[in-house]
Amino acid sequence: MSKNIINIGVIGCGTVGSSFIKNLITKKKIIKRKTGIEINISKVFDKDKNKLAQFKKLSVNSANEIIKNRDIDIIVELIGGIDYAYELILKAIEKGKSIVTANKALISKYGEIIFKKASEKNVYIGFEASVAGAIPIIKSLKESFIGNKITKILGILNGTTNFILSEMYYNGTSFNDALSTAKKLGYAEANPILDITGNDTAHKILILSYISSGKLFSIDEISVEGIYGIEPIDINFANELGYRIKLLGISKKENNQIEIRVHPVLLPKSHILSLVEGINNAVYVEGDMIGKSLFYGEGAGGDAASSSVISDVIDISKKIISKQFIEENFISENNLNLKPFDEIETKYYFRFTAIDKPGVLAKISKILGDNNISILSVIQKQDNPKQAVPIIMLTHKAKERNVKKAIKMIDKLEVIKKPTIIIRLEENLM
Amino acid sequence: MSKNIINIGVIGCGTVGSSFIKNLITKKKIIKRKTGIEINISKVFDKDKNKLAQFKKLSVNSANEIIKNRDIDIIVELIGGIDYAYELILKAIEKGKSIVTANKALISKYGEIIFKKASEKNVYIGFEASVAGAIPIIKSLKESFIGNKITKILGILNGTTNFILSEMYYNGTSFNDALSTAKKLGYAEANPILDITGNDTAHKILILSYISSGKLFSIDEISVEGIYGIEPIDINFANELGYRIKLLGISKKENNQIEIRVHPVLLPKSHILSLVEGINNAVYVEGDMIGKSLFYGEGAGGDAASSSVISDVIDISKKIISKQFIEENFISENNLNLKPFDEIETKYYFRFTAIDKPGVLAKISKILGDNNISILSVIQKQDNPKQAVPIIMLTHKAKERNVKKAIKMIDKLEVIKKPTIIIRLEENLM
Repeated sequence: MSKNIINIGVIGCGTVGSSFIKNLITKKKIIKRKTGIEINISKVFDKDKNKLAQFKKLSVNSANEIIKNRDIDIIVELIGGIDYAYELILKAIEKGKSIVTANKALISKYGEIIFKKASEKNVYIGFEASVAGAIPIIKSLKESFIGNKITKILGILNGTTNFILSEMYYNGTSFNDALSTAKKLGYAEANPILDITGNDTAHKILILSYISSGKLFSIDEISVEGIYGIEPIDINFANELGYRIKLLGISKKENNQIEIRVHPVLLPKSHILSLVEGINNAVYVEGDMIGKSLFYGEGAGGDAASSSVISDVIDISKKIISKQFIEENFISENNLNLKPFDEIETKYYFRFTAIDKPGVLAKISKILGDNNISILSVIQKQDNPKQAVPIIMLTHKAKERNVKKAIKMIDKLEVIKKPTIIIRLEENLM
Repeated sequence: MSKNIINIGVIGCGTVGSSFIKNLITKKKIIKRKTGIEINISKVFDKDKNKLAQFKKLSVNSANEIIKNRDIDIIVELIGGIDYAYELILKAIEKGKSIVTANKALISKYGEIIFKKASEKNVYIGFEASVAGAIPIIKSLKESFIGNKITKILGILNGTTNFILSEMYYNGTSFNDALSTAKKLGYAEANPILDITGNDTAHKILILSYISSGKLFSIDEISVEGIYGIEPIDINFANELGYRIKLLGISKKENNQIEIRVHPVLLPKSHILSLVEGINNAVYVEGDMIGKSLFYGEGAGGDAASSSVISDVIDISKKIISKQFIEENFISENNLNLKPFDEIETKYYFRFTAIDKPGVLAKISKILGDNNISILSVIQKQDNPKQAVPIIMLTHKAKERNVKKAIKMIDKLEVIKKPTIIIRLEENLM
């Protein structure tokens, strides 16, 4: 066999980067015994000198030194962020390097361009670690399910928000307290805005949707809601009604329409996704041959992510050694269009905050009825004349457009004291 | 690019074979667009002429015609059984063909020899469909988790038995009635002996254990129990105590000892594996980097299995086109020894069938105590003097060897009227 040595340059040695380097060094021998390939970490860079210090012997002074190094075959990019990482990756591809990255924001924005450039240069892009940590969902969609027409993907894709929702459920804590706990335990970044707004979940569902449908939509084209606004009272009412609240990324395909959205969902407690607790992730996939399939695992943490990075590095190493470049295209069967969010139909959970006086329910119900929204059940527990109290309502299936219009009207009523909380209720997701 | 056409010969066109052929023909175009590879089914054989008739244009008169055909790159073996399939596969490897098979009995018996021969001839063996249908567990263990030291695999790996246990739970039916229903619905073979004795599960856990530990143990070396003997009364008592009964394949590694066993297990209802119903399969995996991971999906059926066969065919096609042969070794980190079954320790569920008279419980308890088995709880509901009634007992952790010895002694007591039912209770499996 020809040269069976692959040299790796690592840019970024934070949690994932340093864990990857340490794990790969520890496991170098066993990987060689399994694959016949010797994988060396040859250069490491991080702009933070403290982080870099732990890998002194391997460290270089700039990312460019790694990109320009002729001996390096694969660059592992673990710095995160978009613009600078994008620039680095394009330069590296230009120099004939394959890339392994965990950067979901980047792939969900520039994936198409990056893959096209890589294909032109006969190099490979590994991005398993960008979605759901250790769960091999990208490889499974790309390779294991390659024969399938994938019709549905549902994912709990963000450990931070799932942890917060679990905390609120089990300990009755407020959103803010749960977020503080998440930060204390290292499950949330100092700035968790991407997580709790749903944007991180959106990046990930866009990537999964891209692989399985061949079309990469932009985050600006889809509806993204986070878990802001959900209060313990919602968790409790949902619980009483037999539901859990989870933040889902949803991608559903029907004919040439695809529906991609991110928002909290009331899921029946018997639904397997409602059992996914804490920082764990899960992805449910439906396809024409596989039927229903679910993956569950750790969504975060250095070890989980570096398991996926190592897998990508080895896969690409094999391909580099094979020399013959093999195409890998994400193909859409139809000319897919994004279904406008206003046209989706689900059941709904509403929490109105209304003055407790006669006639209030009649007013709300009339507006809903006028907008073709029919009520399934109503709960109003507190009895507190002239005070604002929560009124919980579940509806039959209704159109998003009608719901938005109705709630806008309802929220203008004088008896309504706070913006109404809307959570979609998905009963037939599996 | 050089020759990007791969020719397939199919031997065996029963449920999986015919589904594979039809699916691959339908999906040929999209696979070509995704990979650049044209995959042709060029020859098909089945010894059953009726089955073969549906693929008349492709049919040949013998398996040998396929093996000897110089244009065929990959042979898909879907006949099942051991000896004849083994002979065919060795001949095909000798002729330089790669193999894709769903044959778990074969791989669990002759996997080591087959892989060695294949490696000598620089050909590939795909066997994803041999375990858990559409679930990509083999690829995940081989490739996605390649960096991990896998410490535990637990699987619901047989759809037939899981269906029977679900039926008994939900409909209160007897084992025999549930088995009849399974047969009627096509979920059980005419001869379901491999399923209900646990042997099919054993083949599969041996394969998974092999991939993850590098050592293929023989079915004769491990303890295998099926679901024979489990009665609705056990399902009901388990339910009352908060448990479900499931048939599990278990492989646990600790230092240089590995424990592989197949038997029914009482699982807490909160355990994610206890939610796997009907013909579905699930595999739980623990590793040093991935932490805890679970795969769930359809374990049987032509489409599910052929999804995995197609995936293997495409992977091998890419490798064939790449020309450069890449090793793939299953490696054990330590020199693994099988832990004797008698040395395992779990909690236990016993169902004694004893004459209902004073002193019986004292006799049973004394024997258990003498054998270091301490009782956690006892249920005896029926009160029927001088008749044999069920006595249910849960124990604390005890050694299998002691349990066997104690139950042997207890079953010799005059007051005991039927062999005692023993089901292991695994609470800390995840």
